[in-house]
Amino acid sequence: MEAALQGLETPELLLDAEAVERNAARMRRHVAALGLRFRPHVKTAKCLEVVGLMLGDLPGRIAVSTLREAEAFLAAGVTDILYAVGVAPVRFERLARLVEAGAGMTVITDSVDVARHLASFASGRGVTFDVLIELDVGAKRGGAPPGSATLLEVAQVVAASEGLRLRGVLTHAGHAYGAGDRAELQRIALDEERLAVWAADRLREAGIAAPDVSIGSTPSILALETACGATEARAGVYIFNDLDQLKLGVCGREDLALTVLSTVIGHNRPAGRLLIDAGILALSKDRGLTPEGEVSYGEICDVAGLAPLPGLRLANLNQEHGIVEVQDEAAFERLPVGSKVRIVPNHACITAAAYPSYAVVRGGRVVGRWPRINGW
Amino acid sequence: MEAALQGLETPELLLDAEAVERNAARMRRHVAALGLRFRPHVKTAKCLEVVGLMLGDLPGRIAVSTLREAEAFLAAGVTDILYAVGVAPVRFERLARLVEAGAGMTVITDSVDVARHLASFASGRGVTFDVLIELDVGAKRGGAPPGSATLLEVAQVVAASEGLRLRGVLTHAGHAYGAGDRAELQRIALDEERLAVWAADRLREAGIAAPDVSIGSTPSILALETACGATEARAGVYIFNDLDQLKLGVCGREDLALTVLSTVIGHNRPAGRLLIDAGILALSKDRGLTPEGEVSYGEICDVAGLAPLPGLRLANLNQEHGIVEVQDEAAFERLPVGSKVRIVPNHACITAAAYPSYAVVRGGRVVGRWPRINGW
Repeated sequence: MEAALQGLETPELLLDAEAVERNAARMRRHVAALGLRFRPHVKTAKCLEVVGLMLGDLPGRIAVSTLREAEAFLAAGVTDILYAVGVAPVRFERLARLVEAGAGMTVITDSVDVARHLASFASGRGVTFDVLIELDVGAKRGGAPPGSATLLEVAQVVAASEGLRLRGVLTHAGHAYGAGDRAELQRIALDEERLAVWAADRLREAGIAAPDVSIGSTPSILALETACGATEARAGVYIFNDLDQLKLGVCGREDLALTVLSTVIGHNRPAGRLLIDAGILALSKDRGLTPEGEVSYGEICDVAGLAPLPGLRLANLNQEHGIVEVQDEAAFERLPVGSKVRIVPNHACITAAAYPSYAVVRGGRVVGRWPRINGW
Repeated sequence: MEAALQGLETPELLLDAEAVERNAARMRRHVAALGLRFRPHVKTAKCLEVVGLMLGDLPGRIAVSTLREAEAFLAAGVTDILYAVGVAPVRFERLARLVEAGAGMTVITDSVDVARHLASFASGRGVTFDVLIELDVGAKRGGAPPGSATLLEVAQVVAASEGLRLRGVLTHAGHAYGAGDRAELQRIALDEERLAVWAADRLREAGIAAPDVSIGSTPSILALETACGATEARAGVYIFNDLDQLKLGVCGREDLALTVLSTVIGHNRPAGRLLIDAGILALSKDRGLTPEGEVSYGEICDVAGLAPLPGLRLANLNQEHGIVEVQDEAAFERLPVGSKVRIVPNHACITAAAYPSYAVVRGGRVVGRWPRINGW
């Protein structure tokens, strides 16, 4: 691979197509073995070609994080779209236009007020939205507690509304990223499904139809070995993986599909530092799961084999400078100014967002460019 | 202002044109009073319209952080361009094309090897580059120590080369961002100029012409009250300012020109959290100068007056969620789902980079869109 990549301008976002294909197939097999419907989250890749690989021969069914993603995927023929961020009135008009353009739009909420507003908007506008009630199963982000009265109140508003169709409940186990070990990750995954199914059962016991139980996050889905009542799995970052996924033990090094190609642009020997041209804008300032005292903004690897280069820490970033602390003087000889490295990011979703497209690598060469759908 | 901004989709990047104009005029006055040439750094704004305001009636002279910026500004008629990131061979060809297209390109280096390669490339290609030697005056990023033999060696290689013109030396006092108080900031600013002038004098004493002494960073330039030998000042972020500049005491609240407009999309009362639709992609994960124990990703303000809203801390960000810790329950009543807030970012350069353009606000309304030149 080395020769073909040495000539590229940097920083550049490289996507290993073979790793993407393996990651896609692995998740499809895993979710099929769980007996769940699979809904890839497109927020990581934001790319028609990558999501095509995520879906394979499955029906076109996606989760999105922005309405711009929804619009682009609808234009490409995907009509079953879940907007997986709590819906607010500022989004209603654009959601209605998506429905009018042929999308089946599912939205999420945990709010009685929002459900009432949405019901009123939908019937006034003559459009129909599917609704999942968002549950907080421990992430402490969005969502009603699974055992709460709020859950039933929101469901009643939705179920009674002409323009809304209650589909069921949705969880996102974001706290899986804080799991200290495999056992804790499994506990979180089991708890996520258990709480989601319980919440759906509470609706059913109240006489409210709730066919769908959508769960997800890459680590919690991959940690789940059986499913007992969930109907749908969502995941996104598994398609690229990153240092956070590696630390959580849900992927191996060979599954790391996304890297940033960078050039060594300086040596500061008196300071024991080496400079690369991947700074904040090329990598993001996301510390991921690196501990406070040993912050690192990515792992510095060789270009050919993606092997970590020893004695280097990407300790700080400025806008266009990566500042590498050199623990071993020999690194200055091994990495003269002008030489190239590849950086595995902490958090692939965020690093990728800085680029308009992927340089797609296959068989060690760049074989194409796949555009991203950035912005809102 | 409130009414006109309430209808906007979010997240949106707002630029207060009046504050930009005041910031631009203030810096031009300050640099003129110092008796220095002013070279705005375009890396913060990456925008023709904003840099036009930075320059005012000064000659078109800029510093850039990417060659894409250089290409866009050259196309707009700016020909005196300093590429203010250590030059590496991967950039030579594109720099040559800029010169051939009419740019006077100045590059920086601290490396004898790079200077030799550049000299050979320039004479082989028949182009001429201006060169400033980068000095490390304490930031421990790029640059030769001002008192080093390396400084003289690089200067000799450049001065002896047919295709290179030695212009002098350049400093960037990035360590000014670590100044604990005003006195330390002033000390760093004085030291930056003193070391830069000393290094240029060392070249002159060795018989090498070094007319230019370029210094800069917003905080160090604004902290300097007189100049004694420097010839040029560079600064960029002063045009927008941000929480870091406010903490360093180099701007006031009325000088904060850049904010992110965001919508409240959820309440999680059991968790004491409020959710907004400005997450990592809308704000960046840059912690700026916030202390470890009280990390915050921006200051949450009201839409009308940019007054900080009490009892709220933007404690964490996910990709499209801002997670606000609520210290005062009343905030849930004051900020119902659907209401809007404005966020002052920690680090304006990085937050702005997520957006393709600015929504330009004047007299309380959006009066236009100014595009940004993102990417490399």
